Amino acid sequence: MTASREIHLAARPQGAPGPEDFSLVEVDVPDPGDGQVLIRNAYMSVDPYMRGRMNDAKSYTPPFQLGQALTGGAVGQVVASRNDRLAEGTWVVHDRGWRELALSDGKHLRPFDPSLAPVSTTLGVLGMPGLTAYFGLLELGRPVEGETVFVSGAAGAVGSVAGQIAKLKGCRVIGSAGSAAKAAWLEELGFDEVFDYNETDTKEALRDGIDVYFDNVGGSTLEAALAALRLRGRIVACGAISQYNASSSPPGPRNLFLMVTKRLRMEGFIISDHYDHFPAFSADMSAWLRDGSVRYRETVVEGIENAPSAFIGLLEGENIGKMLVKVGAAA
Amino acid sequence: MTASREIHLAARPQGAPGPEDFSLVEVDVPDPGDGQVLIRNAYMSVDPYMRGRMNDAKSYTPPFQLGQALTGGAVGQVVASRNDRLAEGTWVVHDRGWRELALSDGKHLRPFDPSLAPVSTTLGVLGMPGLTAYFGLLELGRPVEGETVFVSGAAGAVGSVAGQIAKLKGCRVIGSAGSAAKAAWLEELGFDEVFDYNETDTKEALRDGIDVYFDNVGGSTLEAALAALRLRGRIVACGAISQYNASSSPPGPRNLFLMVTKRLRMEGFIISDHYDHFPAFSADMSAWLRDGSVRYRETVVEGIENAPSAFIGLLEGENIGKMLVKVGAAA
Repeated sequence: MTASREIHLAARPQGAPGPEDFSLVEVDVPDPGDGQVLIRNAYMSVDPYMRGRMNDAKSYTPPFQLGQALTGGAVGQVVASRNDRLAEGTWVVHDRGWRELALSDGKHLRPFDPSLAPVSTTLGVLGMPGLTAYFGLLELGRPVEGETVFVSGAAGAVGSVAGQIAKLKGCRVIGSAGSAAKAAWLEELGFDEVFDYNETDTKEALRDGIDVYFDNVGGSTLEAALAALRLRGRIVACGAISQYNASSSPPGPRNLFLMVTKRLRMEGFIISDHYDHFPAFSADMSAWLRDGSVRYRETVVEGIENAPSAFIGLLEGENIGKMLVKVGAAA
Repeated sequence: MTASREIHLAARPQGAPGPEDFSLVEVDVPDPGDGQVLIRNAYMSVDPYMRGRMNDAKSYTPPFQLGQALTGGAVGQVVASRNDRLAEGTWVVHDRGWRELALSDGKHLRPFDPSLAPVSTTLGVLGMPGLTAYFGLLELGRPVEGETVFVSGAAGAVGSVAGQIAKLKGCRVIGSAGSAAKAAWLEELGFDEVFDYNETDTKEALRDGIDVYFDNVGGSTLEAALAALRLRGRIVACGAISQYNASSSPPGPRNLFLMVTKRLRMEGFIISDHYDHFPAFSADMSAWLRDGSVRYRETVVEGIENAPSAFIGLLEGENIGKMLVKVGAAA
């Protein structure tokens, strides 16, 4: 038995989540049984999609259960093993975050070599968010050299990568974000045009037209993008963070009929359907990181006790780049 | 010179068009010049898309001009020719409807053999609406045997064909329409389930789920279809007749985020981009008509002077199957 701390869902948030919706719970984690490993988490990931799992609603992943530890992406090291394939000391990415120590049956783990890149990148630019950007942009957005790609939520873990890949493919890239600091970073990354949506009207910012819209935010930004899309434009429906905290669904875009007149295609995806693209992604992204053509940032919150505030902050746009919680040593 | 009558756009309709928005004008049509032909129209087509062209708004086709004859699909016979390729007596489909006599430079005409099928079918099941159904369903909807296909506006020229093609592909087909008479006809055509949307809630009618939605109407029906679509469902964005007369755009579907969670694809199209599919369509549809696996109906209004009321009625759903105006002899 080893003492550990984990974050439980104490209540289902109504609208924006608050600290009272989470509880920090001390538990004793059993020693690994046959085939099991004990993982000490180094970082856990907080991701916008988790907000949906806090509702008691049927969706593509089952809802989190009240009074139980939340789950999510995490990276850590095997500290005790009764599994032949996973020696002590092995670094693994897994889905049992929101806790210091995770007991695993050894399935659904991805071991990796920690000497290749900082371990935290397995949750960001080299992990699920990076693959989301890579697959969504290239397979669904299908940008062609010379086209204009608009990315909303562009300073987030997914958006910042999607924009940089679009640049690598020879596109003009427009990014929107919610602060001057985020906009400044996107300019550093080489986005051709960047605007703070609190300061600039999105329709005005897109007045010259776009060919691909990588949608991370939904809402009125989608309506503006529909208006700006050129003939045969594509919408990559990746997320709608502007709406995740809404307690009732706001109306959709008034101009959806432009899908017909402009021959647009909109396609949604959930990245877990497409992990078969991971090897190609991993090879490309590792090369792009090495040669500096893709860069990333992380916003790291220290201590698992601060995971709820990290998550609340994520939904309020407090992060630049990937939002992570450094779990720290517990055992 | 030959006397002819044509329908002009007298005013741009505000909301639903009325008789005052059209005028019947007598004109003298010049004799054909070099390369020209004079066509006596037998039937002209009234189609929902024409409503958009009555607004002074940029779209995929230029707006109709005030005080000039409207244009649109028509079928007629060459009655005078100074074009070597188009002898007198040749039957042609062309785009100079809304008039009794049409002078043409001989371009953008499609000659056809009138012995193969009633000439009116070149404007319906064997023409643009048929191709719209064929291309939209097969290329964008991509129905798979055993799937459920929902068609709205199912008793119209496009919807009735889309539903029958879906049946031919081994799908279960649900159709919605706006009257009991329409519903009865769709049952005759072999639709598996039919409902009158004035009597039955669309969400309730789709409660068992659908895989493909062929959308002719937009609005709240699209919202209900989004709710009913299964994982990886497809929306063929063909039309939105429920909204064409709206003077301001109503809000879009509140549940558009289901595009992401259910991995849906929505694609719009304009059939004039896809006339390269005409030969394959024509061969398939002719065979289906011959063996009785596709059937059609026409609602024929007599006399060009009644074309405005035919069009107004089309937008109010007065037609079953293809709405046509029989132009009749004028010369």
